[in-house]
Amino acid sequence: MNKGFLQVYTGNGKGKTTAAIGMAIRAMGAGFRVLFVQFVKGKEYSEIKELKKNKLITICQYGRRCFIKNKPKQQDIEIARKGLKKVERLIKSNKYKVVILDEATIATNFKLFDIKDLLKVINERPKDCEIIITGRYAPKELIDIADLVTEMKEIKHYYSKGIKARKGIEM
Amino acid sequence: MNKGFLQVYTGNGKGKTTAAIGMAIRAMGAGFRVLFVQFVKGKEYSEIKELKKNKLITICQYGRRCFIKNKPKQQDIEIARKGLKKVERLIKSNKYKVVILDEATIATNFKLFDIKDLLKVINERPKDCEIIITGRYAPKELIDIADLVTEMKEIKHYYSKGIKARKGIEM
Repeated sequence: MNKGFLQVYTGNGKGKTTAAIGMAIRAMGAGFRVLFVQFVKGKEYSEIKELKKNKLITICQYGRRCFIKNKPKQQDIEIARKGLKKVERLIKSNKYKVVILDEATIATNFKLFDIKDLLKVINERPKDCEIIITGRYAPKELIDIADLVTEMKEIKHYYSKGIKARKGIEM
Repeated sequence: MNKGFLQVYTGNGKGKTTAAIGMAIRAMGAGFRVLFVQFVKGKEYSEIKELKKNKLITICQYGRRCFIKNKPKQQDIEIARKGLKKVERLIKSNKYKVVILDEATIATNFKLFDIKDLLKVINERPKDCEIIITGRYAPKELIDIADLVTEMKEIKHYYSKGIKARKGIEM
């Protein structure tokens, strides 16, 4: 494998976390160790149950069971900041070829931690480590240093028809 | 689970097949049977190796080992048409809650089969069956009947810097 790149999946459409799950599976299929981190989220979704079956993955969730509605609580901030520190140590351990930081952009958007702290973690990674960041509202500073950016753009969504998230499809 | 929807992931950015893999994992985590079909592709990619470990998935590839470069050969057409017929039977068996048709739009774009034949398969599915279609150039007829469409838009890609597909990351 070449030098590790920074990939960003952003935009308002469905498929960002889903693609992150796919990245984890592909990497493990090649025998790579994967660090799969979710900020803001804390539930054991169907995909988490499934990913856990493989010993090559380390899963860390730094969020409460519910998504932040309007304003984050002090608890949200503490969980996310401690999480980012832990992630920094795990990345520096050089055990993981692929690191996924799901909803990291939501965490910076809610100011749970500063974008500078996230950029520091990214920039100080071991050279073979591929980092994948997903979430809406990717800030310009992140886009600028990314090697790959895909915008997942919502063209149509059944949520607009009042359909709720479904087990096995969205969660 | 509600009525099965039709989801389409299209556009020129990285993340479409990757999201399809993620959908398969999420569905299996919820205990659903998944039919994972790849048109045009025929290689045992890292993700295929990994997905195969779960007994809830049926994987079918209807393509040769190499992607079609310019013009499809007669062999490409035959493989794809037979494949679509097989897929139709498998969907009608009503064994699968989630059906993924990766690169189905590439198959119609290369005229390996007609869009009408694909639409027929989609429209005649059992009512609880969710269908996920991925690939560039999703035709208007497909977008029109889809319940969800995400366009994966390339903002930046390292391919443009001459980087080749890497094992565990792209394949």
